[in-house]
Amino acid sequence: MVTFVHPPVEALELHHVLAALADPVRLQIVQELHKAGGGLNCTTAASPFCQVPKSTLSGHFRALRESGLVMTTKRGVENINVLRFDDIEARFPGLLPKVLEHAPSPA
Amino acid sequence: MVTFVHPPVEALELHHVLAALADPVRLQIVQELHKAGGGLNCTTAASPFCQVPKSTLSGHFRALRESGLVMTTKRGVENINVLRFDDIEARFPGLLPKVLEHAPSPA
Repeated sequence: MVTFVHPPVEALELHHVLAALADPVRLQIVQELHKAGGGLNCTTAASPFCQVPKSTLSGHFRALRESGLVMTTKRGVENINVLRFDDIEARFPGLLPKVLEHAPSPA
Repeated sequence: MVTFVHPPVEALELHHVLAALADPVRLQIVQELHKAGGGLNCTTAASPFCQVPKSTLSGHFRALRESGLVMTTKRGVENINVLRFDDIEARFPGLLPKVLEHAPSPA
């Protein structure tokens, strides 16, 4: 049984969030999750990256989760990911909208 | 003769800037440079990190320079560093002020 660990809002660190966002693939996953609003499974959230190995994508989702940007839950055999937009806003107001504003448009 | 290479404004990439800011030491150097307004030599800009090896600090300044956050010029035997605040603002309006707003206060 896999248990996902998510840092609480008060433990979120700016440099962890910035590091998680400082990768083009992860930034685009965050854009997809933000656009979707609700939860997406890893495959859908990462659909623009079908050429990226699954293990690499899995590492990206772990980095997003550990920084506090993403919450992952099990639903059957799927991992469902949700952007923790409100939590990031609560800790660093205005930061994530500003990064999303300047993120390159997906190809 | 050392020549420093600085990316032009139009070549600045969001993920490079975020990666450069995603380190506590570099973030604090950026805070020091922002506070100073004018140029600071490496020693002054990095004065809160007297315990960090010089070679490590030198790597941090290079990362800041290569991302476009800092401009370095030679003045005699010193390297003078200036935060490229206006350049970053021109390319990613509001991003750097938002990061600085949420950066931890220096100890």
